[in-house]
Amino acid sequence: MSTAGEVIRCKAAVVWEPKKPFSIVEIEVAPPKAHEVRIKILAAGICHSDEHVLSDDLKATFPVILGHEAVGVVESVGEGVTSVKPGDKVIPLFIPQCEECRPCIHPRGNLCKLNGIETPLGLMPDGTSRFSYKGELVHNFVSTSTFTEYTVVHESSVAKIDASAPPEKACLIGCGFSTGYGAAINSAKVEPGSTCAVFGLGGVGLSAVMGCKAAGASRIIGINRSKERFPKAKELGATECVSPLDFEKPINEVLFDMTDGDGVDYSFEATGCTDTMAAALASCNRNHGISVMLGFSPALSKISFSPALILTGRTWKGCLFGGWKSKDAVPKLVLDFMQKKFTLDPLITHTMPFDKINEGFELLREGKSIRSVLVF
Amino acid sequence: MSTAGEVIRCKAAVVWEPKKPFSIVEIEVAPPKAHEVRIKILAAGICHSDEHVLSDDLKATFPVILGHEAVGVVESVGEGVTSVKPGDKVIPLFIPQCEECRPCIHPRGNLCKLNGIETPLGLMPDGTSRFSYKGELVHNFVSTSTFTEYTVVHESSVAKIDASAPPEKACLIGCGFSTGYGAAINSAKVEPGSTCAVFGLGGVGLSAVMGCKAAGASRIIGINRSKERFPKAKELGATECVSPLDFEKPINEVLFDMTDGDGVDYSFEATGCTDTMAAALASCNRNHGISVMLGFSPALSKISFSPALILTGRTWKGCLFGGWKSKDAVPKLVLDFMQKKFTLDPLITHTMPFDKINEGFELLREGKSIRSVLVF
Repeated sequence: MSTAGEVIRCKAAVVWEPKKPFSIVEIEVAPPKAHEVRIKILAAGICHSDEHVLSDDLKATFPVILGHEAVGVVESVGEGVTSVKPGDKVIPLFIPQCEECRPCIHPRGNLCKLNGIETPLGLMPDGTSRFSYKGELVHNFVSTSTFTEYTVVHESSVAKIDASAPPEKACLIGCGFSTGYGAAINSAKVEPGSTCAVFGLGGVGLSAVMGCKAAGASRIIGINRSKERFPKAKELGATECVSPLDFEKPINEVLFDMTDGDGVDYSFEATGCTDTMAAALASCNRNHGISVMLGFSPALSKISFSPALILTGRTWKGCLFGGWKSKDAVPKLVLDFMQKKFTLDPLITHTMPFDKINEGFELLREGKSIRSVLVF
Repeated sequence: MSTAGEVIRCKAAVVWEPKKPFSIVEIEVAPPKAHEVRIKILAAGICHSDEHVLSDDLKATFPVILGHEAVGVVESVGEGVTSVKPGDKVIPLFIPQCEECRPCIHPRGNLCKLNGIETPLGLMPDGTSRFSYKGELVHNFVSTSTFTEYTVVHESSVAKIDASAPPEKACLIGCGFSTGYGAAINSAKVEPGSTCAVFGLGGVGLSAVMGCKAAGASRIIGINRSKERFPKAKELGATECVSPLDFEKPINEVLFDMTDGDGVDYSFEATGCTDTMAAALASCNRNHGISVMLGFSPALSKISFSPALILTGRTWKGCLFGGWKSKDAVPKLVLDFMQKKFTLDPLITHTMPFDKINEGFELLREGKSIRSVLVF
C-alpha cells in the first residue's frame, strides 16, 4: 500500500560546488515513487567520505545533498514497498542490497548493482531525483543523502531497525562503525590469538580495533601520527600504540621489530593514504598475512609497491561498508549494540544541531573530532 | 643411522657469473652432514626461475649450481635423517618444510623459515656448502641445486615419492606443475561453476588451467600474446583463448566484455610481468574477484595500480609453489599423477641429455619449449 502524498518542503544542507561550504536552504522533496521510501532524518553522522567530496577527492554530481550515515523514521512509502512502513525506525544504506543482482546473490562481497558509488550520477535508479531547489534538480549522494530533514531512497537502500535504538548513536552503524568492525570480522576474519595492526585511529580505525578485539585478537597495535588518540584506542581494545613520527625506520620495519620479525597476522588501513596502504601490506606476515584496505583514497591516486610482497604469500583485500550485506546486517548490528556487545559512545565526540553542519566539518578538518553527530 | 661416506666427484653445470652459459665441469660433492641427504639426480626440468637468475633478474650468489625441479634417488644420508633412506626415490623441495617453524605450523602459507629464497645465500642451513670446484666454494640455489649428478639438501628439503614414478615426468611436480595447479586449488580455492582467466600459457600457466579444471570451473579463459599455445591450453581445459594483441582496448576490458561486465571470478598471473599483474587484478570481479600472482618478477620491479580496484572488494594474493606445504603435498601429488588424476605429458615438449643444458635454455629463451627435461 502506498502512503506517498505531497511534496515536502524542508531544510537541507546543499553543496553547490566542490570546496564550498554547505548552504542550509529550503528544498522540495518529492513523494516516493514505486519501491521508494521517504524518510524523516533524526540524526546523521559526519564522515570523512563526505569531506572527500567537498575537497573534490571523491567524485559526486553537483549540486548535491551529502551525508550517508543516519537514523530516521519512515514518513511514507511508494507502491510495492514491503520491507518498511511509515513510522518504522530505519537506517539508510549507502551500499544497497537488492537481493536480486549477482553481487547480492554471491556469498562473498556486498557491492549491489544498485550502488551509487561506482557511477556517481546522484540519481535514483530510475534516473531522476526527488530533490529540487527552486525548480533546479539537486542530486543525491551514494543512494542516501542524509544532511536533509527528509530524504527519499530506494527500498534496497533502507533497513528497518529496533524501534528503541537511540538515533544519535545508532547512526554510526550506517557507516563508520560497521566499516571498521566488519573489516576485522568479515573481510579479514581475524582469528583468536592473532596479532593485528590498525593504521589510522579515526572512527573507522577505532571500529576496526573493536572488531579485532571482538574476534579475540591477543595483540592489537594502533598506529597514528598524533598520539592524542592513543588513550581512546586503548580504551577500545588496542594493547599498544605507536606513532611513525617516533621512528626513523619505516613503520613496517618497526612492526616487524615488535613481532620478533614475524610481522602482524592482520593489518587494517583506515587512513586512505596510499603510502600507508603499502606500509600496511608490508607490515603483515610475508607467509600468511592479510592486509585489508578500508579507507577511501583520492580517485586518481596510485599505489606503487613491489610484487614480491604478495608473491611470498600475503593477501591484500578491500571492503566497502565492512563487507556486510547491508540490509541483512544492519538490523542485527543494531540489536548487538542494544545488547551492549559493543559500544559507540567513545566514537562520538560531538553532538550538535543540524544547522551547525559547517562547524562539524571544521572540527573534522582540524582533527578535533572522531565522529560529530548532527541532530534534527 | 648415517650412511654418509666419501666425497663424490661428478659432473655439474656451474654458472660462474650472471649472463654466462652453464659450464659442465667436474665438481666435488661432500658427504651429507647431520640432517642432510645426498641425492643422485635422475631427471631435472628447466624452469623460468633458473633463467631469471641467469639474466640477473632474480638474485643468487655465484658461482652457483642452479636447478630446483627434479627427481632423484637418495645416495646417502647424514646423522639423524629419518624421513628418507638410501635408495628412496625423492623430489628435492625448493620450499622446505621443517615442520617446526611458525610458517610450517601456521595453517595458511608454506614459507618455511629454512627457505633459501628470501635470503639467497646459496648455503646449507649451517652456513657452508657441500659443493666445490678445485677447492673453490660453489653455492647452491634455493636449497636444492639439481643441475648436477649429485646434490646435497637438508632433510627438510626432500620428499620421498612413489618408487615407480617416472623421473622424467614426475620432476615437474617439484616446481612448475605444482605451482600452477596449487594456485588454483590451494590459494584461490576455485569453486565449481566459476569463471577463471589464466594470464601466460607457459608451464605454470597451463598447470593453473589444469587446476581450474580440476576444481570444476565452467569457463577457463587462457590469455597469451602468441597463439601457438592455444591448442595445448584447450587440450588441458581452457574453454576459450585470447591474445591481447588482437584488441586495441586493455585486456581487462576485453575480459569484462566476455563476461557481461562481471569480470572473472578468479584470475591467475603466470608471466611475472608487472603490467600483466595489474591487468589480472583489474580483470576480476570488482566485488568478489580473487587474483593470484604466481610469476616471479624482476627483483626491483614495482607495480603501480589504483587502490580503488581493491577497495570495492577484490582480493590480491600470491603464492610460492602453489601454497603447498611441500613435504606433505609432494608425495600425494605424485600419487595423484600415478593414478592419472592429471597429466604431465603435454607440458613436456623436449627431453635431452644433461650435457645439452645450454640448448635447453636456448629453447626456453626462444619460446620454443614449455618444459625441457634433462635426463642424467
